Amino acid sequence: MGLLQTDHGDIHTPIFMPVGTIGSVKGVHFNELHSDIKAQIILGNTYHLYLRPGTNIIEQAGGLHRFIGWEKPILTDSGGYQVYSLTDIRKLTESGVTFQSHIDGSRHEFTPEGVMDIQRSIGADIIMAFDECTPYPCDYEYAKNSLQITHDWLTRCFTQFNNTSSKYGYEQSLFPIVQGSTYSDLRKISAEFVASKHADGNAIGGLSVGEPHEMMYEMTDLVCSILPKDKPRYLMGVGTPENILESIALGVDMFDCVMPTRNGRNGMLFTRNGIINIKNKKWENDFTPIDPDGESFVDQQYTKAYIRHLFSAKEMLGPIVGSIHNLNFYLWLVQEARNHILKGDFTKWKDIMVKKVRTRL
Amino acid sequence: MGLLQTDHGDIHTPIFMPVGTIGSVKGVHFNELHSDIKAQIILGNTYHLYLRPGTNIIEQAGGLHRFIGWEKPILTDSGGYQVYSLTDIRKLTESGVTFQSHIDGSRHEFTPEGVMDIQRSIGADIIMAFDECTPYPCDYEYAKNSLQITHDWLTRCFTQFNNTSSKYGYEQSLFPIVQGSTYSDLRKISAEFVASKHADGNAIGGLSVGEPHEMMYEMTDLVCSILPKDKPRYLMGVGTPENILESIALGVDMFDCVMPTRNGRNGMLFTRNGIINIKNKKWENDFTPIDPDGESFVDQQYTKAYIRHLFSAKEMLGPIVGSIHNLNFYLWLVQEARNHILKGDFTKWKDIMVKKVRTRL
Repeated sequence: MGLLQTDHGDIHTPIFMPVGTIGSVKGVHFNELHSDIKAQIILGNTYHLYLRPGTNIIEQAGGLHRFIGWEKPILTDSGGYQVYSLTDIRKLTESGVTFQSHIDGSRHEFTPEGVMDIQRSIGADIIMAFDECTPYPCDYEYAKNSLQITHDWLTRCFTQFNNTSSKYGYEQSLFPIVQGSTYSDLRKISAEFVASKHADGNAIGGLSVGEPHEMMYEMTDLVCSILPKDKPRYLMGVGTPENILESIALGVDMFDCVMPTRNGRNGMLFTRNGIINIKNKKWENDFTPIDPDGESFVDQQYTKAYIRHLFSAKEMLGPIVGSIHNLNFYLWLVQEARNHILKGDFTKWKDIMVKKVRTRL
Repeated sequence: MGLLQTDHGDIHTPIFMPVGTIGSVKGVHFNELHSDIKAQIILGNTYHLYLRPGTNIIEQAGGLHRFIGWEKPILTDSGGYQVYSLTDIRKLTESGVTFQSHIDGSRHEFTPEGVMDIQRSIGADIIMAFDECTPYPCDYEYAKNSLQITHDWLTRCFTQFNNTSSKYGYEQSLFPIVQGSTYSDLRKISAEFVASKHADGNAIGGLSVGEPHEMMYEMTDLVCSILPKDKPRYLMGVGTPENILESIALGVDMFDCVMPTRNGRNGMLFTRNGIINIKNKKWENDFTPIDPDGESFVDQQYTKAYIRHLFSAKEMLGPIVGSIHNLNFYLWLVQEARNHILKGDFTKWKDIMVKKVRTRL
């Protein structure tokens, strides 16, 4: 169970993928990702990498792995989400999307074919289909029309993907993405269409965009009941430790989210016993570790009082420590989930753990 | 030769001390300082630590070493320099200096006795006398009067130091500071006065504050000719790799400077072959290491093209890598200087090296 094989190594699922949007997991060295955080796969973003450093530089380096110095698997998001969330001026056509760079306002067009080509140049092990990520709330007509476009694009993505090949001598897999907003009928249609592509893995997009958690779980449950069970299911952009545990229970295998790093940079630390806001005065003279059972060196090296001081004094080391701690915790959490699935007591463990991880300490 | 013993370990000189102003060397973990940068001693600052986290928290932790988690030697600057450079509103009296915090405007007074007490609470292995650091340029009358105050304060510092004892069971040494601006007669008087205190080590302050390098070398040379040769001489706040090499030639044993970290955070990288501004477009597709002979993991792990990308994309990892690389280079440089002193060919090596390290690549 739970094994995804790539030419850069095996991935044991369920897995959390640290987000390295622009080619770096913010504030974290690759040796730390490897040895301390124990990441098996990281995520990069097509939109960001296309704009900076650009495919030309990445190709000259021999692909993203060599450019950034990471020898394990990489997944790239297609840019569909970023085009909608980061750019102000954009135009959706049947052919694709034209948009202006959030960096310098320059004009660009993303088409399904172009995005496949860019992801061939970047060279991630797993690449994502180009889709439209609908916002929440989203009216039914918009969601239905958008889904049709996403499905047309998906077919074009597979055609382009199958007509091209890897540039760096190792295999790439294309994962399609289920959309359909919060409408069960659309999600069902989409999941069936996606399943018909017989891809190496399948993703669920358009969730965790502001809808209630119950609605996210309902859609995830429905989609998981349709997507093939022998292929990994990737719930994009999720989520809190609680979201991850509940979604594993529904059959999800892969996750990514900026939460452990973004919140870590702001002093919110996730632990086995709950959530710590390390900026609170209550930690000012607490000379115990963040998480006595934590496995990364930051859990051994630093006390709560010291980390609180780092945040108070706006020292860079605070956000760095917060990021490493949180990523290590997320990777520990999914590894523990796997252990309990193998042991056969996942649900019991999950129900206890969900209560713990959402507690405010 | 070149050995300074403390209860937290030996320091082999000449040595460069990474600056950990507020209890952290910006962007760098202590395991990296220890294993990758090979720091033997780091510097903290009394002014900053007194304001944040405050002596109360540091005392509860059992001293600064335990608070920050660093088991090797620490030196604390006395705050004399910061009171003048960071605070807008201050008043110099015979008793000491009143000033307003640069953080919240709260009022505080530093006296020689108080600063000794604060440094007893912080618990660094080497603590510095409270002095007035004169600016450059400084008229003769001001420098002369200021020197008289600094000398009076020095006597009071030693009295207070000798009347108190370490709070954490290990020894502390008090280093006096030579002042006298750029006036040879004042520097001579000050060096003789300082030498008369028979301290474990002696510092040269008030240089590297904007005066021409030749003037700094002239004053350093003069002061070194007077200070005892069997005790370490510490040239405060210096400097570029070139400054350090030239000052070692004049007899200086200890250095500290924010340059490797501050400039590293801004993309200026010091190497064996010269200075790299990694933001320059010329490095965009240079896939070789920053410094092929560099000994820290960042020299092995990352290419110039990747580091340039990190700076272009404003990724935190860029400043982190720059800081680690530069600190490792500084520590390598002083270690190499020591090797050549022991070998007997320091001057020859230094003359070649000075030309290299100031080259713009």
